[in-house]
Amino acid sequence: MQVLSGRWPSLLLYYLKDGTKRFSDLQRDNPTVSHRMLTLELRKLEAAGIVQRTTFDGYPLRVEYDLTPAGLKLVPLIDALGDWWDETENMRIRRASIPAADV
Amino acid sequence: MQVLSGRWPSLLLYYLKDGTKRFSDLQRDNPTVSHRMLTLELRKLEAAGIVQRTTFDGYPLRVEYDLTPAGLKLVPLIDALGDWWDETENMRIRRASIPAADV
Repeated sequence: MQVLSGRWPSLLLYYLKDGTKRFSDLQRDNPTVSHRMLTLELRKLEAAGIVQRTTFDGYPLRVEYDLTPAGLKLVPLIDALGDWWDETENMRIRRASIPAADV
Repeated sequence: MQVLSGRWPSLLLYYLKDGTKRFSDLQRDNPTVSHRMLTLELRKLEAAGIVQRTTFDGYPLRVEYDLTPAGLKLVPLIDALGDWWDETENMRIRRASIPAADV
């Protein structure tokens, strides 16, 4: 499940869950991601069968990205992890700040 | 959520979900993990407030690890991700093997 680690997979899932996006859409949605990084992350997700890449002939070449059925099933799980992270933030920070000696 | 990426966090969560473990228990449960890697991963989980480290005076020093309340809440989410990975494996592999041209 290495494909899910890192910052971009969950962000790309978030943007793709609402429907088809072009590369340029995803770049505009994520201004801090480089062209190269976005390409690599999308390829990783495609190779894992989470993202579907569709190309349309013509000039310029049109490329669209969608979540696969497996990708769509992943969205609520990533959302739940996000909720867990937010919900437990105070609990985790408070606990992490207790000096070991007091335990 | 970088703390959850990589192989060891989910494995350690799996072993700790059943209750208190000593460092030696975790090492025995994960024979391929080095002492240094296990130490680093446990510290990361502790710093994120997911694992609780308790030391007991005496010789040799006794150290025990438990999941915190936040850590316990994480277990079903990681289980669900594991199930998703298994359930969608065929779906993902079949889709990932479709040559781009046929799409």
